[in-house]
Amino acid sequence: MSKNTSSQQDQFANKAQAWSARFSEPVSDLVKRYTASVGFDQRMANFDIQGSLAHADMLASIGIISSDDKAAIEHGMAQILEEIASGQFTWLLDLEDVHLNIEKRLVELVGDAGKRLHTGRSRNDQVATDIRLWLRNEIDIATDLLRQLRRELAKLALQHNATILPGFTHLQVAQPVTFGHHLLAYAEMFGRDAERLADCRKRVNRLPLGAAALAGTSYPIDRERVAKTLGFDEVCRNSLDAVSDRDFAIEFCAAAALIMTHISRLSEELVLWMSPRVGFIDLADRFCTGSSIMPQKKNPDVPELARGKTGRVNGHLIALLTLMKGQPLAYNKDNQEDKEGLFDSADTIRDTLTIFVDMISGIKVKADAMRAAALQGFATATDLADYLVKKGVPFRDAHETVAHAVRHCEEKGCDLADLSLAELQAFHPSIGQDIFAVLTLEGSVAARKHIGGTAPERVKLEAQRVLDQTAG
Amino acid sequence: MSKNTSSQQDQFANKAQAWSARFSEPVSDLVKRYTASVGFDQRMANFDIQGSLAHADMLASIGIISSDDKAAIEHGMAQILEEIASGQFTWLLDLEDVHLNIEKRLVELVGDAGKRLHTGRSRNDQVATDIRLWLRNEIDIATDLLRQLRRELAKLALQHNATILPGFTHLQVAQPVTFGHHLLAYAEMFGRDAERLADCRKRVNRLPLGAAALAGTSYPIDRERVAKTLGFDEVCRNSLDAVSDRDFAIEFCAAAALIMTHISRLSEELVLWMSPRVGFIDLADRFCTGSSIMPQKKNPDVPELARGKTGRVNGHLIALLTLMKGQPLAYNKDNQEDKEGLFDSADTIRDTLTIFVDMISGIKVKADAMRAAALQGFATATDLADYLVKKGVPFRDAHETVAHAVRHCEEKGCDLADLSLAELQAFHPSIGQDIFAVLTLEGSVAARKHIGGTAPERVKLEAQRVLDQTAG
Amino acid sequence: MSKNTSSQQDQFANKAQAWSARFSEPVSDLVKRYTASVGFDQRMANFDIQGSLAHADMLASIGIISSDDKAAIEHGMAQILEEIASGQFTWLLDLEDVHLNIEKRLVELVGDAGKRLHTGRSRNDQVATDIRLWLRNEIDIATDLLRQLRRELAKLALQHNATILPGFTHLQVAQPVTFGHHLLAYAEMFGRDAERLADCRKRVNRLPLGAAALAGTSYPIDRERVAKTLGFDEVCRNSLDAVSDRDFAIEFCAAAALIMTHISRLSEELVLWMSPRVGFIDLADRFCTGSSIMPQKKNPDVPELARGKTGRVNGHLIALLTLMKGQPLAYNKDNQEDKEGLFDSADTIRDTLTIFVDMISGIKVKADAMRAAALQGFATATDLADYLVKKGVPFRDAHETVAHAVRHCEEKGCDLADLSLAELQAFHPSIGQDIFAVLTLEGSVAARKHIGGTAPERVKLEAQRVLDQTAG
Amino acid sequence: MSKNTSSQQDQFANKAQAWSARFSEPVSDLVKRYTASVGFDQRMANFDIQGSLAHADMLASIGIISSDDKAAIEHGMAQILEEIASGQFTWLLDLEDVHLNIEKRLVELVGDAGKRLHTGRSRNDQVATDIRLWLRNEIDIATDLLRQLRRELAKLALQHNATILPGFTHLQVAQPVTFGHHLLAYAEMFGRDAERLADCRKRVNRLPLGAAALAGTSYPIDRERVAKTLGFDEVCRNSLDAVSDRDFAIEFCAAAALIMTHISRLSEELVLWMSPRVGFIDLADRFCTGSSIMPQKKNPDVPELARGKTGRVNGHLIALLTLMKGQPLAYNKDNQEDKEGLFDSADTIRDTLTIFVDMISGIKVKADAMRAAALQGFATATDLADYLVKKGVPFRDAHETVAHAVRHCEEKGCDLADLSLAELQAFHPSIGQDIFAVLTLEGSVAARKHIGGTAPERVKLEAQRVLDQTAG
Repeated sequence: MSKNTSSQQDQFANKAQAWSARFSEPVSDLVKRYTASVGFDQRMANFDIQGSLAHADMLASIGIISSDDKAAIEHGMAQILEEIASGQFTWLLDLEDVHLNIEKRLVELVGDAGKRLHTGRSRNDQVATDIRLWLRNEIDIATDLLRQLRRELAKLALQHNATILPGFTHLQVAQPVTFGHHLLAYAEMFGRDAERLADCRKRVNRLPLGAAALAGTSYPIDRERVAKTLGFDEVCRNSLDAVSDRDFAIEFCAAAALIMTHISRLSEELVLWMSPRVGFIDLADRFCTGSSIMPQKKNPDVPELARGKTGRVNGHLIALLTLMKGQPLAYNKDNQEDKEGLFDSADTIRDTLTIFVDMISGIKVKADAMRAAALQGFATATDLADYLVKKGVPFRDAHETVAHAVRHCEEKGCDLADLSLAELQAFHPSIGQDIFAVLTLEGSVAARKHIGGTAPERVKLEAQRVLDQTAG
Repeated sequence: MSKNTSSQQDQFANKAQAWSARFSEPVSDLVKRYTASVGFDQRMANFDIQGSLAHADMLASIGIISSDDKAAIEHGMAQILEEIASGQFTWLLDLEDVHLNIEKRLVELVGDAGKRLHTGRSRNDQVATDIRLWLRNEIDIATDLLRQLRRELAKLALQHNATILPGFTHLQVAQPVTFGHHLLAYAEMFGRDAERLADCRKRVNRLPLGAAALAGTSYPIDRERVAKTLGFDEVCRNSLDAVSDRDFAIEFCAAAALIMTHISRLSEELVLWMSPRVGFIDLADRFCTGSSIMPQKKNPDVPELARGKTGRVNGHLIALLTLMKGQPLAYNKDNQEDKEGLFDSADTIRDTLTIFVDMISGIKVKADAMRAAALQGFATATDLADYLVKKGVPFRDAHETVAHAVRHCEEKGCDLADLSLAELQAFHPSIGQDIFAVLTLEGSVAARKHIGGTAPERVKLEAQRVLDQTAG
Repeated sequence: MSKNTSSQQDQFANKAQAWSARFSEPVSDLVKRYTASVGFDQRMANFDIQGSLAHADMLASIGIISSDDKAAIEHGMAQILEEIASGQFTWLLDLEDVHLNIEKRLVELVGDAGKRLHTGRSRNDQVATDIRLWLRNEIDIATDLLRQLRRELAKLALQHNATILPGFTHLQVAQPVTFGHHLLAYAEMFGRDAERLADCRKRVNRLPLGAAALAGTSYPIDRERVAKTLGFDEVCRNSLDAVSDRDFAIEFCAAAALIMTHISRLSEELVLWMSPRVGFIDLADRFCTGSSIMPQKKNPDVPELARGKTGRVNGHLIALLTLMKGQPLAYNKDNQEDKEGLFDSADTIRDTLTIFVDMISGIKVKADAMRAAALQGFATATDLADYLVKKGVPFRDAHETVAHAVRHCEEKGCDLADLSLAELQAFHPSIGQDIFAVLTLEGSVAARKHIGGTAPERVKLEAQRVLDQTAG
Repeated sequence: MSKNTSSQQDQFANKAQAWSARFSEPVSDLVKRYTASVGFDQRMANFDIQGSLAHADMLASIGIISSDDKAAIEHGMAQILEEIASGQFTWLLDLEDVHLNIEKRLVELVGDAGKRLHTGRSRNDQVATDIRLWLRNEIDIATDLLRQLRRELAKLALQHNATILPGFTHLQVAQPVTFGHHLLAYAEMFGRDAERLADCRKRVNRLPLGAAALAGTSYPIDRERVAKTLGFDEVCRNSLDAVSDRDFAIEFCAAAALIMTHISRLSEELVLWMSPRVGFIDLADRFCTGSSIMPQKKNPDVPELARGKTGRVNGHLIALLTLMKGQPLAYNKDNQEDKEGLFDSADTIRDTLTIFVDMISGIKVKADAMRAAALQGFATATDLADYLVKKGVPFRDAHETVAHAVRHCEEKGCDLADLSLAELQAFHPSIGQDIFAVLTLEGSVAARKHIGGTAPERVKLEAQRVLDQTAG
C-alpha cells in the first residue's frame, strides 16, 4: 500500500485532522457526538454502497477511473457488504457518518482505487442520493403492505356484505349499514394512501448525484447513466436544489401522517367495538394484553398503541417542516436532522401496517350484537320519512312527523317497528301495512344500492373490485 | 304560496324548531354562535348553488322532480346568485350554515320546488361537495400562480445566466455560482409544488354527493351524471368514507406548507441579500416599508411577512391532522373545523404567490457586489484542488494542500488568485501558470456545464426550458 | 390648527408618504392589504389607548410634554374610546394598524399635543405593550372561567359522590368508580390549567414600553412609573429582547392547548356517554342538534365541536413556534403574524369554557345505566384477588385464580357475584361466605378511601375542597 | 425457594402466560416488539428502584410487609442497581418494560419478599411515578445548564459592554447597540426559560403512586410518607387523573421548545456573524467542521445543527399533544408513547445547552468589523431626528427631513456623519456644529442609559446583576 494510502488512512483515522490545516484544535468529544450521524445513518449503508457502485461505473465509463479501479471498488464493496451483514463492520463515531466509515474501509481494502471514488461528488449529493434510494425502498414496502391490508379488509367485507350494524354519525345511531360497507370505507382510505405514495415516489425517484457540493462538478460526468443504473426516473435539474431539497422527505411524512390518521380512526373503532358497552367484535388474543392487577382484563393494546403512534408521525412531519423553514441555499448542517424523524416515520407505518394486516384477518365479528344494536336507536327513521314522502307528504313535514313518533317511542321505551299500525297511523293516516317491510334493517340497507351505497349487492361488487385490484 | 310552504318557512325561520318535536328547549345564543359556520362558509355559496343545480338536474333526469321544478330551482338560484353578488343577500346566524341559508331563500322564492331540492341528499354530502368544488378552483388558481412565478424566475435567470455570486453552504462561501442558476433552484421547487397540486387535485376531484347522511339513499340516483355535470373525474365509491373524508384538505394543506417553505427560503435569502452587510439586490420600493422612528430604514416587509406566514400554514396542517385523529366513522361535528384553516391556507398561498410574481420581476440585481463577494472567501479553492488532482495529486492530498494555501491567504488577508506563482508553487510544485485561469470565477462556473450545473450555457438552456413549460 | 398639523395629517392620510422621501413609489394595494394588520389588531384599541395614556402621563411627569398636552391627549383619547365603542370610528387600511389609526385621529382632534405622544417610543414597543395588556385581560377571564367550571364539576361530584359507574382502562371495564370521583379528575386538570395561566401571567405582566425601536431611547424616561400605572409587575430589562420577545404568547398558547386537550378528553367521554350503546348521561337539548335527514337524532354537537377545536389551538401553537424559529434580533416583520393565532386561541378557550360551565350543570345522570354497566365486565375481579391475598394466597397466584374464574364466567355468561359459593370455592378453597360483600360495587369503592381514592366519603371531602377553593 | 416463587418466575419468564388463563394464544413476536417499551424505558431503572424502595418502606410502615421483607427488598435492589451500572443486567423483551424486568430479577434474588412488593400498586401509577422522578432530575440539570449559559453570556457582555455593532431590525441597520447589550437579550430569554422550568417542576413534583390501576387501592396506604421519602411536594389528589395525566410532560416539552427557539435565534445570529459577508465573530475551531470537497471551508456546524434541532423538539411537543387529544379516562395504552419524545427532548436540550455553555466562552469578537458595519447604514439617523426635535422641529417633520438627508447620502455613497455642516444645514437650518457629537456611535449608545437601554454603563449593571444571580 502506497504512502499516499497510509496518509489517507491517517486522515480518516482522526477525521478532525482531515481539515486540520485550517483548524487549530480538534473537535471535542461532545461536539463529535452532537454532530455525528453514524449512530442512525448506518442503516443506509447498503444504499450508500449501491450509489457508490453506480458512481464508480460512471467514472469508469467516462475514463476518470480505470476499469481496474472499478473492479477493485466493486470487490471491496462486496466485502464491506458482507462485513456489515455479518455484524463485523466497525462503525466509528470519529468518522462521523456512514459515508466516511465505508470510504475509509474501502481505502483500507483496495487502496488508491478507493481514494478515487469520491472524485466528482460530495457528501452533500451522496447523502441526498442515499436517502432517496432508501426511501424509495420503504415506499415500495409500504405500498405492498397497503395492498395487503386492503385485501384483508375486502375479504372480510365480502364475508360480511350483509351483516348489519348501526351506522353512526355523532356516535348516535343514524341508519343501518352493512359491516362490509363499513370495512370498505377503510379500503378506500388506504387506497388513497397508496396513490399518494405512488405520487410521492415520482418525486423521490430523481437523482441528485452529480450536484457535488452545490454547483456541480468540473468533470464531464454522465448523470443519465447513473440514473439509469440506479433505477431513477429522472435527474435533478439544478445542483443547488438537489443538495438542499428535502421536499420528498416532507411529502413522505405527510403521506405517512395520513396513513396513521386512517389507522387511528380504525383503531378508535376497534377499541370501541371491543368495549363491553358495544361488544361488536373480538380481537384475536395475540393482539391484546391482560393486566398486572385486574385478572379479567383483555386490552386491545395494539390498536391503542397504533392510535397513539399517530402523534409521533405528525410530530416528525412538523419537525421536518420546521427544519426547512427559512433555510437559505444551499446545504446547511441543519439538514442532518432530516433523517431520524423520517426513519421513524417509515418504521412506524411499516410495523403498524404489518400488524394490521394480520389483525384484520383475526377479527371475530359478533353479528348478533351488531344486529341488536341496530334495532335500537331508531335506525330506520329515515326510511319512515322517505316512505311518507313517497306517499306525498312534503319532506320537511315527514321529518317532523317521524320526530314525533320517535319521541313517543323513546318515552315508551320501544322501537318504531314495535308500534302497531294503529299507533303509527296516529302519527300519519297515510301509513299502511307495507310500512313494516320498510322499517326492517334489511329493507333499509337493500334500498341503498347505487354506487357508494351500503346495499349487500353493492358491497359484494365493491369488495370484489378491491380484491381484483389487490391480487398479489 | 301553500300552507306547506309557509310551514316550511317557519321551520327554517327558527331552525331549532326544525327538530323541535324531539327537543324540549331551543339552542342558546352562545351555542348557536359556537356551532354556526355561516360566518365563514358563506364564501362557498357559489359552489353550493352549482352543486344544487347539478343535483336538481339529476333528480329531474330520473323523474324525482319535474322539469318545472327544475326550471323553478334554476330560476330561483339565478336570483340568489345575483343577490349574493350584489351584497343584498341576508345571511342569518339562526340558519347555521350556507346551505340552509340558501335553501330557505330558495323556498321563499320558488315554494315547493325548493322544498324538493334536498331529496336524496344530506348536508353531510352537500358540504363535502361544496368544499371540493371550492378547493378545486383554488388549486387551479394556485397552479397558475406557480406557473407565473416560475416564469418570472426563469426570465430573470436568463438575464443573469452569467452573473456570478458566491454560492454558500453553511452561509460560508463555497463555490461561485451564477445568479441565474440560483434563481432556477426556486423554479425547480415551485415546479414540484405544481406537480403536488396536480396530484392532490386528482383526489379532490371526486364526487361525494349521493352519499347522503352516511349510507347512501333509497332513491335511484345517477351519480355519474352529477359528476359529469360538475366536472368531477370520479365518484367517491363508499358513502361512509365520502362524508367523513377530509384527506384532500390535509393533502392540500401539506402541499401549501411546502409552497410556504419554499417561499420562506426564498424570503430568507431576499432579506439577507437586502441587508447592507450583503447588498446583493434591491427590492422595488413598493414591497418595502420605512420606519416610524428611523428615517433611513427600508425594510423588506413583504418577504419577512411571507416567511412568517409559513407558521400559520404549518399550523393549519397540524390543526387538520389533529382534528381527524381518532375520529370514528362517519360524520362527526368535529369536521366543521375543517374549513377555516383550509380557507386561510388557500388565501395565504394565493396572496403570497401573487405578490411574489410581481416582486421577482422587480428585483434590482447588484452584480458588482455579487462579484466582489465571490472574490472573497476562496470560492475557487475546489478548483485549485481539482487542478492538482488533474496534475496527478491524490484528491485527499490535494485537499490538504489547498487548506494550507487557504490558511496562508487568510493570515495574509488575500485571495488565492492574489498569490504569485512562486507562492503557489511553495504549496505544490506541480502548479503552473495555467492555474490563474482556473482560479477565475468565470473559469470555475463555465466548467460545470453538465445537466444541473451552474455554467452560464447550462443556465440558459434550463431557463429556456422553464419558459417553454410556463408559456401562458 | 397649524400648518404642521395639517402636514402631519397628510402624512397619515397616505401612510406610504410618511417615508416617501426615501421611496420612489407607493406601496401597491395588494401589498397594503398583505402587510396591514388593522383588520385584526383593532381589537386591541382600548389597550392601545390605555398604554398611550400611561405613556403621556410619564412624559408629562418628566417634563417632555406639558400638562396641557397631557390633558389634551386624555381628552382626545376619551372621545376616541367613545367613537370606537359606538362603532363610529373609521378604520383605514391605509393607516396599516391600530396604532396609526388612533394616532392620526388624535392629531385630528387635539393637534400638536397628539403629535408629541409618540416621543420616546416606537411601534415596536407599543405593540408589544398592547398585546401584553390584552393578553393579561384574557388570562384573567379564562382563569375565572376555569374557576367556574371546576365549581360546576365539584357540585355535580358532590351530588354523585356515591353514584357508581365502571371505571375503564383501555375502554375495558377495570374497577368500579364513583361518578363524583370521575368528575373530580377533570377538576384536577382544570386546576392545573389555572396554575399554568397564573404562571404565564407573571411573564406576560412585564412592561416592554421604553424599549423604543430596539435600543431604548435618549429621553430620560421613567419606565417604573409607566409599569405602575399599567399594573405591570416589572419592566423588561433588555430593549432588544423586549421588542422581539413573543415567549409569553407561545406560553399562553401552550397553556391553551392543554386546556383544550382536557376539554377534548371530557368531550370524548360526553360523546361516548351520550351514545345509545353506553347511555350514561343525557346532555340538555340546548347543547345538541338534530339532523336535517334523520328525525330521531340528538347529536352532542357542542362536545364534538369542542373536541375538534383542539386542532386549531394546537395549530396556533405550532404556528407561533414556527414563526419565531431562527429569527435574528431584533424586531422583524414576521412578528406581525403573532396576533391572529393568539387571538383565536384566547377566543376559543373563552367560548368553550363558557359553554362548558353551562353544559356541566345541565348533565342528566342516568345512574341506573351506570350501575348496570358496572355490574358487567367483572369490575370487582381485583377485589376478589385482594380478598385471596388477604387469605394468604400470593398475589400472582391470586391473580391467576381470578383469571380462571373470569374465564369461567365469560363462558357461562354471568358475573363473578352470580357464582355460587361452591362454584367459587372450586377456584380456591379459601373463599368463604364473606366474599359476596367484597364482590359488591359498594364494598369495592368504599374500600378505596385514602387520599386520591374513589370512595364516596373521600369524594365528598375532595368536592368540598374544590368548592371552597372556587368560591366566587 | 418455594414452589410459589418458581411458579412466579415461570409467569415472568413468559409474560404472556401471566394472563394466560383468559388468553388462548401467546402474543406474536411482532406484537411483542411493537408493544414493548423496555428498549427505551430502561433508562428510568434507577428511578424505578428508588420508587419501589419508598413504596416498600411505606408498606412496612403500615404493616403490609414485614421489616425482613423490606430489608430483603433493599438488599435485592442494591444488587440490581449494581448489575445495571456494570452492564450485567439482562433486559428481556419478553418482560415488556423496565418494571417487570426489575421485579422479576428481584423475585429471583429475594423470593417471596419480592413478590409482595407490588401490593397496593399497579404499573399504571408506578410508571407515572418513574417518569416524574426522571423528569424532575432532568429539569434540575437543565436549570443548572441555563444558569451556566446565562453566566457565560453575562461574562462576555461585561467584556463587551462598550463594543458597538449595528442593531438590526428587518436585518437592516437600525441603531447602534453594544454587543454586551445584545448578548444580555439572550440572558433574558434563558432566564425566562429557567423560570418556566421551575414552574413546570412544581407540577412534575407530585406523587401519583397510590392511584394503583385507576381507582386507588383497598390497602390503608400512607401516600404522604411516600411523597416525603421521594421528595415530592404533594400527592396527586385524584387516582383517575394520576394515572392518565401527562400534562407535565407536555408542559416540559413546551418549555423545551422555547429553549430551543431561543437557541435557534442565537444560532441564526452566530451563523450570520460567522459569514464572511458579516464577519463579526469567529467560533472556536472545535465547534466547526471543514468540508470533504472545499478545503477553505470552516462551517459553524454546531449552531446550524442546534437550529435544526428546534424541529425535533417542536415535533415532540405536537406528538404528545396529539397523543392525549380525545383520550377517555383513565389509562390507555396510547400513553406508552409519552416517553421517547420526552426523553429525546430532554436529551436535546441537555446536550445543546452543554455545548453552548462552552461555545459562548469561545467566541472571538471582531470589534473592528462590528464598528465598521455600524458606521454604514445610517445607524444614527434617529439621533439626528431626535436632535431636530430638541431644536423644536415637530417629530414627523424631523423624520421627513432626515429621510431626505439619508436619500442624499445614499446617492452620494456616504454616511450622515460624512456630510459637511453646510450640507446638513441645507436639509434644516437649525443644525449646528454640535450635531457631529450626536452622530457618533458612542454618543448614540451612551444616551440610552435607562433600564433596558443599550448604554455601556447600563449594560455593566445588568451584566453584573446576571452574574450575581447565577453565581454557582
